[in-house]
Amino acid sequence: MFNPAIKALNAPPVSTVLDWKASYDGRHGEMIDMSQAVPGYPAHPDMLNALANAAASADNARYGRVEGDDNLRAAYAEHLRMLYSANIEPEHTHITSGCNQAFVAAALAVAGRGESILMTRPCYFKHESSLGMLGISVGYVDCHDDNGLLPSCADISAAITPEVRAIALVSPNNPAGTIYPADLLTEILALCKAKGIWLILDETYRDFLPLEAGAPHDLFAADGWQDHLIQLYSFSKSYCMPGHRLGAVTSGTGMIFQLAKIIDNIQICAPRAPQQAITPMLAHLASWRDENRARIAARASVFSDVINQLNGWELISTGAYFGYVRHPFDGIGSRDVAQRMARDAGVLTIPGAFFGDGQEQYLRFAFANADREVIGHLGDRLGLLT
Amino acid sequence: MFNPAIKALNAPPVSTVLDWKASYDGRHGEMIDMSQAVPGYPAHPDMLNALANAAASADNARYGRVEGDDNLRAAYAEHLRMLYSANIEPEHTHITSGCNQAFVAAALAVAGRGESILMTRPCYFKHESSLGMLGISVGYVDCHDDNGLLPSCADISAAITPEVRAIALVSPNNPAGTIYPADLLTEILALCKAKGIWLILDETYRDFLPLEAGAPHDLFAADGWQDHLIQLYSFSKSYCMPGHRLGAVTSGTGMIFQLAKIIDNIQICAPRAPQQAITPMLAHLASWRDENRARIAARASVFSDVINQLNGWELISTGAYFGYVRHPFDGIGSRDVAQRMARDAGVLTIPGAFFGDGQEQYLRFAFANADREVIGHLGDRLGLLT
Ligand SMILES: Cc1ncc(COP(=O)(O)O)c(C=O)c1O
Ligand SMILES: Cc1ncc(COP(=O)(O)O)c(C=O)c1O
Repeated sequence: MFNPAIKALNAPPVSTVLDWKASYDGRHGEMIDMSQAVPGYPAHPDMLNALANAAASADNARYGRVEGDDNLRAAYAEHLRMLYSANIEPEHTHITSGCNQAFVAAALAVAGRGESILMTRPCYFKHESSLGMLGISVGYVDCHDDNGLLPSCADISAAITPEVRAIALVSPNNPAGTIYPADLLTEILALCKAKGIWLILDETYRDFLPLEAGAPHDLFAADGWQDHLIQLYSFSKSYCMPGHRLGAVTSGTGMIFQLAKIIDNIQICAPRAPQQAITPMLAHLASWRDENRARIAARASVFSDVINQLNGWELISTGAYFGYVRHPFDGIGSRDVAQRMARDAGVLTIPGAFFGDGQEQYLRFAFANADREVIGHLGDRLGLLT
Repeated sequence: MFNPAIKALNAPPVSTVLDWKASYDGRHGEMIDMSQAVPGYPAHPDMLNALANAAASADNARYGRVEGDDNLRAAYAEHLRMLYSANIEPEHTHITSGCNQAFVAAALAVAGRGESILMTRPCYFKHESSLGMLGISVGYVDCHDDNGLLPSCADISAAITPEVRAIALVSPNNPAGTIYPADLLTEILALCKAKGIWLILDETYRDFLPLEAGAPHDLFAADGWQDHLIQLYSFSKSYCMPGHRLGAVTSGTGMIFQLAKIIDNIQICAPRAPQQAITPMLAHLASWRDENRARIAARASVFSDVINQLNGWELISTGAYFGYVRHPFDGIGSRDVAQRMARDAGVLTIPGAFFGDGQEQYLRFAFANADREVIGHLGDRLGLLT
């Protein structure tokens, strides 16, 4: 009675992990939840105020434009122009109900059933399940721990068969935390152009790059980016408002036209009140974003120290938001390890198995969720496991 | 560079029609907009207040359960139990970001590659474009004007080939306005059960049924409904909050489990603040809903009178919310007629062509959008056309 492609999907991974919370009896203190990627601090009071004001308006309760409200598209394009020092116009943007929806729409826009999209592995599980759901085949480009889990351009090139319509990348990476160097991204976009495919680049975590890093990349300066780049963003993490469901796509006008047809079917329009609320906040909360960037960078360094001091545990990759860690329990599956960690040590992480084949040795820690003091206790907690 | 299934879709129909607004110079007074289906009155002040309060909360800014917030699912199940006098539990419900998204998820849950879903014709264009987008084939069951545009069970039965996984119905119907009799629905669900397929029933307009009609249908009392019925609802029209994006599915727990995997990919969760805001309103706004029901029924009767008095125009079907009307311009396409009506008479409607093949003689009027006085002027306006 069900579509076999849907039956074959796993239950929502984050829900599965959150269900393990109940197994911990609190004996070592509060649970340290480093599972779902959500900042541990609340939205800015001005943001909450703006959300409340926007929601009070009968006008914002009406349907809006499929592509997004005009003022948000204008403000977002302006924000992108500054961030990437590039010529980006409002017509290059499409507001979506979150970045996952943006990915689904982008995948549908480029690949029909039987066609294929490449992903790096370890991969973001929602990208993988979204493609499975849509009947789009997945090709994997394996990343290696001697290279900080960055893909090599040669591996990508070798994986581009005639069915491949796009490669999907995530930078800063989920689950690896790795920040993709601008040069590598330039090289990959050039490869996509040469092969006539799209680069789908998910930058959900770009506001957590170190400030000194400058622009995340130069792709918007590349010749013909409009016909080869689909850049994705989420307002969820940067503004601590995932429950309001807001994301964005940046691409050429041809792609935006195709996306509008898809979003019209799956959403009609993104929620209006959050669109109105966020519009002035892009500029207004610039320094707050930078404070959080610094705050999370500090968490990254405490986290690295903790793992590096732990016997048997190895930090494979990090950079922004996440750390990808090899656990010391050889021969025990990552799911069992993570479940045991939840129950016996009160530490919630995502097992490597959820990020694809060959990941049983690893766990993902979303250290951004926890403050420095809490991360400091992590070593003691993990030391409890035998 | 694009998925051919997406390239083949038309631009969003409602956007196309709304663009015609600019062609009217206002010479006959304000534009009468009967195009997009949205009530012409605002949300209730208590609803707007609740939305504002919910949006002010940092807690509601967090991700929520994929299936929907527990308190809303409980309140909605309670509401359904009263409305349908049936045993419906919270586990039978799934909250979505609007009813269109609910349809996309339902279609994906039942039909895989090469499989097919039946629709009645004239059909709701978003259902048709959603299936096209997903690569699901569409089978049409034509409805006839000597039968108020209701499908016949024999026609449906004849259309059920081995590839068909479901039939999608809309009652009250968009675009026809027709209210499907409870007996017909019972018969169709029995047919679906006998053939081993699903009935997807979109009841976006159920709160606009005449009060004396009683329960919309008895399907939730049918043996085994859980494995054959996927019932869809929208909070958009009943609560005048389409911009907040909230809908719901009611089905068996097996279906809800499959839907959660799909919604997790395309949305993660429905917007939280509107979920919290609507929860107490289901009971609190019961009498307001009934006032609107009566208000829109009064519009229906004024609308019928106006069309029946117009030479050459014929009301083909109505009931709730919409009227489907034959225009008098033989040999001129419905799109041309609608465009001319917008420009020369300041009346915005949706051309029949958007509801499928064979509909060039018709226009859809969403009379619920306009108050009685405005509808009263419609006759004069349409009389201007030659
Ligand atoms: C890489 C990546 N993309 C997209 C998302 C989803 O973001 P949104 O809340 O905007 O749908 C996440 C959330 O965890 C993510 O990690
Ligand atoms: C039959 C039907 N289903 C679904 C919808 C979409 O509703 P929502 O705003 O909940 O996505 C509409 C809106 O016009 C509709 O007419």
